[in-house]
Amino acid sequence: MSEPLRLGIAGLGTVGMGVVKIAQAHAAMLERRAGRPIKITAVSARDRTRNRDADLSGYAWENDPVALARREDVDLFIEVMGGDNGPAKASTEAAIATGKDVVTANKALLAHHGQALAETAESAGRVIRFEAAVAGGIPVVKALTEGLAANEIRRVMGVMNGTCNYILTRMESAGLAYDQVFEEARQLGYLEADPNLDVGGIDAGHKLSLLAAVAFGTRVSFDAVELEGIGRVSIDDIRRAADMGYRIKLLGVAQMTGRGLEQRMSPCLVPADSPLGQLQGGTNMVVLEGDSVGQIVLRGAGAGQGPTASAVMSDVIDIARGIRVSTFGQPAATLCDAIPAKATAPAPFYLRMALSDKPGALAKVATILGDAGISIDRMRQYGHEDPTAPVLIVTHRTTREAIDHALSRLPATGVVEGDAVAIRIETV
Amino acid sequence: MSEPLRLGIAGLGTVGMGVVKIAQAHAAMLERRAGRPIKITAVSARDRTRNRDADLSGYAWENDPVALARREDVDLFIEVMGGDNGPAKASTEAAIATGKDVVTANKALLAHHGQALAETAESAGRVIRFEAAVAGGIPVVKALTEGLAANEIRRVMGVMNGTCNYILTRMESAGLAYDQVFEEARQLGYLEADPNLDVGGIDAGHKLSLLAAVAFGTRVSFDAVELEGIGRVSIDDIRRAADMGYRIKLLGVAQMTGRGLEQRMSPCLVPADSPLGQLQGGTNMVVLEGDSVGQIVLRGAGAGQGPTASAVMSDVIDIARGIRVSTFGQPAATLCDAIPAKATAPAPFYLRMALSDKPGALAKVATILGDAGISIDRMRQYGHEDPTAPVLIVTHRTTREAIDHALSRLPATGVVEGDAVAIRIETV
Repeated sequence: MSEPLRLGIAGLGTVGMGVVKIAQAHAAMLERRAGRPIKITAVSARDRTRNRDADLSGYAWENDPVALARREDVDLFIEVMGGDNGPAKASTEAAIATGKDVVTANKALLAHHGQALAETAESAGRVIRFEAAVAGGIPVVKALTEGLAANEIRRVMGVMNGTCNYILTRMESAGLAYDQVFEEARQLGYLEADPNLDVGGIDAGHKLSLLAAVAFGTRVSFDAVELEGIGRVSIDDIRRAADMGYRIKLLGVAQMTGRGLEQRMSPCLVPADSPLGQLQGGTNMVVLEGDSVGQIVLRGAGAGQGPTASAVMSDVIDIARGIRVSTFGQPAATLCDAIPAKATAPAPFYLRMALSDKPGALAKVATILGDAGISIDRMRQYGHEDPTAPVLIVTHRTTREAIDHALSRLPATGVVEGDAVAIRIETV
Repeated sequence: MSEPLRLGIAGLGTVGMGVVKIAQAHAAMLERRAGRPIKITAVSARDRTRNRDADLSGYAWENDPVALARREDVDLFIEVMGGDNGPAKASTEAAIATGKDVVTANKALLAHHGQALAETAESAGRVIRFEAAVAGGIPVVKALTEGLAANEIRRVMGVMNGTCNYILTRMESAGLAYDQVFEEARQLGYLEADPNLDVGGIDAGHKLSLLAAVAFGTRVSFDAVELEGIGRVSIDDIRRAADMGYRIKLLGVAQMTGRGLEQRMSPCLVPADSPLGQLQGGTNMVVLEGDSVGQIVLRGAGAGQGPTASAVMSDVIDIARGIRVSTFGQPAATLCDAIPAKATAPAPFYLRMALSDKPGALAKVATILGDAGISIDRMRQYGHEDPTAPVLIVTHRTTREAIDHALSRLPATGVVEGDAVAIRIETV
């Protein structure tokens, strides 16, 4: 096994250059661990003239990633361009068709085409690995696919979009409205070109759908993820939730129930002093629950050059070592179709509404909740602001259905101004 | 790859029976993930007549684990008997000599003989894997060996002995002295037959030495671990530390410095609201720091039947899948000899002493600290109890050497009763 493993890297942005830097800085260490040299032979990017912070003169250059993927001096194709279609898909297919293994950081590509790509690769005896696509530097794909492979997985949860977590923590710490922090994040370059990928929960939803496929042995079904972004999270709710001891996080939950596979990515309240509640900025956390192992929690940087490149290179080293695990932990052709189920697991909810200053107002609300079978754990009414008083309620465990039913009856009371807000509370 | 992988299990205690249960309950799932059936063919234990909570009638029985290890119908030998020598070592050697791979949960065996066993196995083309030996169900060996393989590891830290953590958290929550909780733990069956393995820090030290070998590419050097158990942690210090916002944990730290490899397992203070500070009971936490990935934190059950068996079976599935990674992440013959270094990295320290009720007493102590170059971050003097007053000091970052020098000068002041206590403060 002393033949070098020859890499072709498509994409020389933050992640691609991170991979180059590790390969250059740690050649001897990588060879010692992998049992063979790991060498970059060719690279490709859109703009050859751009100034890059490393010497690329030793590598062949291709303007076209598909041409890179087809090169005979490349054994392993690294796709770090991004995009759920176009060159990323075409070059990945070209790599497989010409006998290469593939390592990718592209969650969008796999969320949409992972099933087909994995089947094609596996019938050609090739592997596609994607550690860097989920939760940056945290080795969560490996932990789930290999480390917990003896477990029937019960639930997977995670905060997996650093930009959303940055926006939410910054809103709280600076007391700023969503729109202001969104603009800050844009200026800092934290947002994707299409910001809805981040703040709409799509990027995090992609990641969740990939973990769910591994966890439950089901075909990736991103379209079945119930998605709710953070655009409607108000500074009011962040403040009020903090008063009650909670923080708001964009949290993904996937679990297999008797009714089918639930996948949900939405803003949730978590206890402020819990591990999830204490996550700051770009840090990610993933919680894996298995029947034998119980709960495993993993925390680390969810993005950034070093962490993401670390994950890409761990897949490269695996392949250099001869580790060839199916993309989703079992042959893609054996994955089942998941029956999508609405996420209905009961949970406590946080409710916020503006109550009119009328006698019996609170009683009317309480009656509606009681009629819907919702019992109240904690309630707090603040002093009147303008003509209404903010009221916060933390319920005992109930269903989203019961909450929606109760909310639909509130307007008819004539004592609640505007729309009431309901946010699920998750504890880890 | 549809030939079954045939297991021989030596040891049918908690862990061994956990492995049997997973194999029986999840045969189809394991086959789907591993790509081939995983079948137990033979087992061995000291007492065949003991009532065990599973049907073992389908497996051949051996009274002698060495005979089990040599059986022709065993491909993979699982050693879950324990013990750093004797039958565990003899049977592991017999398994390798007769061409089997080995999965073990035995940290003591590997801490003492891991280098020789790994070299023997690797020159025979066999592998020894040990995920279950460190931090129970947490896939930390895999995370370090594979998931972070692209990183130069800077530091490894961890709370890795659940019994010690149980004792320390129970002392705090119930306000009980060490001896009382130790006795409780013994009666609950939480302690090893030789309790010093737990409370002396030896078991946790074994684990740290194994992680250090993987992290730094060095031969296992358990003898170089600076060990300090929890036997001298007093309820007084637990209470006083809590007053200052800290908890006491038995914490392991391994890091490579310019002077050599530091390995230390000792009681430390950690902030009460930090992830390490919030660890309760048998939960373990490991912190891995790499040059590219930054800090990765892993948390989960450090012991117990399900978690430990989950880890054993993850190694089994790896081997069934054809994953054959060297025991310590690179061929054992290529590991370097570590130069052991005293753990001298500066840190803040917590000091507790009993001060006599004499004019200028505090000034004398402060002068000695100042002379030793130690500056004080926070100080608290309590009211006098009997003739002395408890004084707590949290220093700024300083060295153990400076602290020891200052402590040695305290008796001559005539104002400090008894021995002062100094405990290192670690933050994560």
